[in-house]
Amino acid sequence: MTDPSANEGVNQQVYLKQVPEGIAGPDDFEVRSAPMPEIGPGEVLVAAHYLGVDAALRLIVRDSDEFLFRVRPGDLVRGSMAGQVIESNHSDYQVGDYVLASQGVQNYAVSNGDDLEKCDVSQAPLSAWLGGFGVSGLTAYFAITEECKPQPGQTVLVNGAAGAVGSIAGQIARLAGARVIGLTSSTEKCRWLTETLGYDVAINYKEGNLYERLAEAAPDRLDVIFDNVGGTILDESLKLIAMRGVVLLCGSTSQYAAETMTGPNNYIWLGTMRARMQGFVIFDYADRYAEARARMARWIASGDLKLAEHVVDGDVADFPRAFQQLYEGQNLGKMLVRLPAGR
Amino acid sequence: MTDPSANEGVNQQVYLKQVPEGIAGPDDFEVRSAPMPEIGPGEVLVAAHYLGVDAALRLIVRDSDEFLFRVRPGDLVRGSMAGQVIESNHSDYQVGDYVLASQGVQNYAVSNGDDLEKCDVSQAPLSAWLGGFGVSGLTAYFAITEECKPQPGQTVLVNGAAGAVGSIAGQIARLAGARVIGLTSSTEKCRWLTETLGYDVAINYKEGNLYERLAEAAPDRLDVIFDNVGGTILDESLKLIAMRGVVLLCGSTSQYAAETMTGPNNYIWLGTMRARMQGFVIFDYADRYAEARARMARWIASGDLKLAEHVVDGDVADFPRAFQQLYEGQNLGKMLVRLPAGR
Repeated sequence: MTDPSANEGVNQQVYLKQVPEGIAGPDDFEVRSAPMPEIGPGEVLVAAHYLGVDAALRLIVRDSDEFLFRVRPGDLVRGSMAGQVIESNHSDYQVGDYVLASQGVQNYAVSNGDDLEKCDVSQAPLSAWLGGFGVSGLTAYFAITEECKPQPGQTVLVNGAAGAVGSIAGQIARLAGARVIGLTSSTEKCRWLTETLGYDVAINYKEGNLYERLAEAAPDRLDVIFDNVGGTILDESLKLIAMRGVVLLCGSTSQYAAETMTGPNNYIWLGTMRARMQGFVIFDYADRYAEARARMARWIASGDLKLAEHVVDGDVADFPRAFQQLYEGQNLGKMLVRLPAGR
Repeated sequence: MTDPSANEGVNQQVYLKQVPEGIAGPDDFEVRSAPMPEIGPGEVLVAAHYLGVDAALRLIVRDSDEFLFRVRPGDLVRGSMAGQVIESNHSDYQVGDYVLASQGVQNYAVSNGDDLEKCDVSQAPLSAWLGGFGVSGLTAYFAITEECKPQPGQTVLVNGAAGAVGSIAGQIARLAGARVIGLTSSTEKCRWLTETLGYDVAINYKEGNLYERLAEAAPDRLDVIFDNVGGTILDESLKLIAMRGVVLLCGSTSQYAAETMTGPNNYIWLGTMRARMQGFVIFDYADRYAEARARMARWIASGDLKLAEHVVDGDVADFPRAFQQLYEGQNLGKMLVRLPAGR
């Protein structure tokens, strides 16, 4: 833990040092200190209160140009922050406004406004705008309500059920009347899924024969597989896809750190079962975010939806460790670093 | 070649001898001779004129109970025949009627009528009812017109373009106004695809860098991938799927003989491109076969659609060799064995 005032006036930044092998950890990143930036005409200065820790970062630090937004050794690490405007030469932004910014992993962002999104903290706390009320939650919302559309009584499997997106996807599927099964990596997380989030069944995929346990939990097969994991877990699930089922691909975290990515060997079941596996990108729903947030705010108020956060109190230099913990599965819900300015 | 009268009164049958390794060949099957069967009340005796040779047989002879209709060592090999009713105790069938039957690989079938389908040979020759006018052609028809729905000007890739299903799928996609690219296994077959079937581009996947050649042929990416091959070919194609593209799975012939099946490692592109990969089973369209055949008959009459057949003249004992040739890629269109009764 750091003294909140220790780094005032200094902009700590996290750079990629090398292409990681396996799970990325502190050795793969370098923390640098820069002077606090100055803004020009039309620009805004944002002080970060929270940094979002996103699994997809592991994909874009790979030694491959196949993926968008690649971060190379020597580059500032990409990432989102939630913070407050502390200086403004932009008519749309006032000092004190709460905003999301996409200016990488650092204390301060200089923006012309293009990447900023205002956060109404009366609707949800600032941290939630990086998680359940931000891209993670909106992804879960539109994935379930628009892409998967589970019907009451259908069975929905959430792979990566305790993560930032999965923890919300499962709850929304339950609100749609589905029977929800979650896969996660520990008995403790299983208990949290069933006792706190209302999952019908939770399975620790590290114990026993995954296929057999899944088959037992889903006697009527799986109408929806919400997958943000890929690998063996997706593969075993696929054998249980129901007739005309949907496999929604929301990420492939098991593959991001793999030397060679492997696909679902059991894809042949899609044919037999007339099922479909489909991609989905949240930005296609950008003009409906407000509608989704209004509905989610009502569910939160009624207690039907819980936005879980795993907050690491620290400073920018703690980001690499938090990222490693994310891949070790230590989080319940969205992983965030809370900076001194946010405490 | 055999003397058409040599085996009269004898029912030759093909049994599975052992679970094949790699491509199945004559050593994996056993030919037995049985007396000509006799029919009981309500039954029909069919003499086969043609045997269909289907790639999917390789899947169901695997040492696995995962797939439907498994054929085990010692079982009569499953398969379809087109032939003529030669005795009938069934009011719906008269001697002389042309029918399809699903009674395995043999000269004669005894049926209670449940598996029979009448063939109107004024609409298409009997052999076509096992191929372009049968399940293969209907699969291509509904896959393209109902599942993929390519729009004029879109790009369609057919993997396995010279096969029974692919050769028709490509032509129907062209009739829908799409630009059609075919992948096949020889220069000779490439020439046939472009010169006879009207494919816009044909690529021999055995030559050069497949991804680069595909990327060059599809500068606007692939709106539809019609796949009945799987494996590397599907994997390389996937990297070129267009935004909101469709990958239609109509089979995975490259995987049927593989010791361990492997899936599409590049499935992650479905996510990025908001694309979908979906299964399809022709029997779901059973109540629309007549409509499809009527439309296909018009295309055949106008010269817009060609039904290609690769006919091996022989007897039932030649089935295993024909099956091996199918996996060696020797066929243009549907592989059939024409029996003495059909000559």
